[in-house]
Amino acid sequence: MKAARIYGAKDVRVEDVELKNLGTIDVKIEVAWAGICGSDLHAYSQPEGLLPTDEVHPLSNRKIPLTLGHEFSGTITEVGSDVTSLKVGDRVCVEPNLRCGTCKECREANYHLCRNSGAAFIGLADDGGFAEYCVLDEKHVYQIPDHMSLEQAALVEPTAVTHRGVELAGVKAGDKVLVTGAGPIGLLTALCARAAGATSVYITDVSKERLELANSFGFVTSLNPTEEDVVARIMKDTDNTGVDVAIECAGVQATFDTCLSAVKITGTVCLVALFAEDPKLPTFQALIKEAKVVSSLAYANSYDRVIDLIASGQVPAEKVITNKIGLEAIVEDGFELLLNDKSQSKVLVSSK
Amino acid sequence: MKAARIYGAKDVRVEDVELKNLGTIDVKIEVAWAGICGSDLHAYSQPEGLLPTDEVHPLSNRKIPLTLGHEFSGTITEVGSDVTSLKVGDRVCVEPNLRCGTCKECREANYHLCRNSGAAFIGLADDGGFAEYCVLDEKHVYQIPDHMSLEQAALVEPTAVTHRGVELAGVKAGDKVLVTGAGPIGLLTALCARAAGATSVYITDVSKERLELANSFGFVTSLNPTEEDVVARIMKDTDNTGVDVAIECAGVQATFDTCLSAVKITGTVCLVALFAEDPKLPTFQALIKEAKVVSSLAYANSYDRVIDLIASGQVPAEKVITNKIGLEAIVEDGFELLLNDKSQSKVLVSSK
Repeated sequence: MKAARIYGAKDVRVEDVELKNLGTIDVKIEVAWAGICGSDLHAYSQPEGLLPTDEVHPLSNRKIPLTLGHEFSGTITEVGSDVTSLKVGDRVCVEPNLRCGTCKECREANYHLCRNSGAAFIGLADDGGFAEYCVLDEKHVYQIPDHMSLEQAALVEPTAVTHRGVELAGVKAGDKVLVTGAGPIGLLTALCARAAGATSVYITDVSKERLELANSFGFVTSLNPTEEDVVARIMKDTDNTGVDVAIECAGVQATFDTCLSAVKITGTVCLVALFAEDPKLPTFQALIKEAKVVSSLAYANSYDRVIDLIASGQVPAEKVITNKIGLEAIVEDGFELLLNDKSQSKVLVSSK
Repeated sequence: MKAARIYGAKDVRVEDVELKNLGTIDVKIEVAWAGICGSDLHAYSQPEGLLPTDEVHPLSNRKIPLTLGHEFSGTITEVGSDVTSLKVGDRVCVEPNLRCGTCKECREANYHLCRNSGAAFIGLADDGGFAEYCVLDEKHVYQIPDHMSLEQAALVEPTAVTHRGVELAGVKAGDKVLVTGAGPIGLLTALCARAAGATSVYITDVSKERLELANSFGFVTSLNPTEEDVVARIMKDTDNTGVDVAIECAGVQATFDTCLSAVKITGTVCLVALFAEDPKLPTFQALIKEAKVVSSLAYANSYDRVIDLIASGQVPAEKVITNKIGLEAIVEDGFELLLNDKSQSKVLVSSK
């Protein structure tokens, strides 16, 4: 079958590979759509530290070359003899976080923080979804309802990331929320915050196109910090109170500072983005506000509800899709395009 | 009456001053004991930013010279005509945070975060307890039980600071807790964490004397980072899990880093100390642990329970007292001694 495999920095090859054998608890998925994530771009540009480049990952027993892609959907074409929860023909999406199942975190339902995984994922530390087929342990696979499209299903994974961010930030009905960064994660965060009952959602970015996409949601106030003082605007709108919650989806000092300045007294800043460089924490400001800074990683125990939220239309995640391409075009029209063209948001890759 | 008034940096004068007139809702307290706090040392060394040096504070309508001292106890000798909650002869302690009573924070019971106060206190932005007498609005004054000493009562204020830190950090029965810094606030934090049910309490400091005082509590594991790898020790003791909560009472990058490294996955770091320089936030470490960083400022709505905790012996706050001095000696045996001799912990000043 065809798969997009990474060999090293800027070296992704679409080539014929052999699919791994189906184990007794595995299912075989014919991939429909797989989204390109920021982590894929990171892995493509600079794989060290993110992919098992030198040593095999202890849970997957694999290192590069590996098939990328961890945001994917498809249809089951074969099931192992011990599979009980799924059957051939089921339309599914994948929860890709690797986990040992036996460490303290796994036992205590924090499998996304598995001590033996180190935040590793199928599609980064094991073969993923930029391929015609994928064979996976059934525990990673969730059936989707009939009225949900396979495009929507490919967005469950990034939406689950933002759903957790919104949940850990404590967003509740009536809240005012700031989201810094209007990339796919920022946009999905805005949608999840709205679904959680936020009455005002502000989103910031320096890209006009991204802010326009946010505006198309119909409920967002989009702010460009190069054109407007974001904190002053929020303070003006909120009678000098600030937002209840700020969710950081950009990963730089300036946006982190904006979050801490824009949250109300006793407000929460939730970090979802990865920071290339650690920011300074403005401790005095945090102290006199008794502000909280929380971090959110991936997702756990939430796929059913995220599927519900998208399928019901309460989180119209498909709105962030800006392009769909074929597997053969993944390097040029996927990775390279996304690295160079910040007007793009989510690009889905077909397995064909 | 005699009072210790600050005129500027390193300029505190014990002099005769006139006591302010008793208003209808005020009480007059004959001060028994007043503790010297880190903020007093800060105000003594570098008053700008902490005291109203140039402009009067909007709530007190005062600027320097001011009588310092915000951790104090005494006996009521006179009450205004409209005072209802207190009477002459009552033994009391003082909750010194200034508040307007009408802003959103005050109305929502967060009067310690009053928007018009800016974290100002009696004894820093208005006349305080390093004096023979103090006249105060009754809302700042709490009666203590008969079996509580006036020395203990002078420790209610700093204990309330640490009680809030422990509360916001979410310490609960069975927790393992790290406290960085064994000054008075660190030591009282250890006592409050124990009272909240912590089964293991680690405390770090570079001062042998401070660690010895911590050891005298009987339940603390004291660690000197110049002699031992604190994180390695905690990981060894906790089967590689870490502590549930770390409470930062030192205010430097090294101890902040220790807190984040020593907390468990999903753990909480609570900042109680003021930082002279903002630390870098290790975001990747915070992310892969989903660690929380919360800040705690002063106290609110907790004096009754803190008085109970000390009076009942569950928080033996008096153990942190290392010296008692007279008012006349406050500069030499108080401020100067504490700035230069890190073996001291809490010094109480008598009003005589």
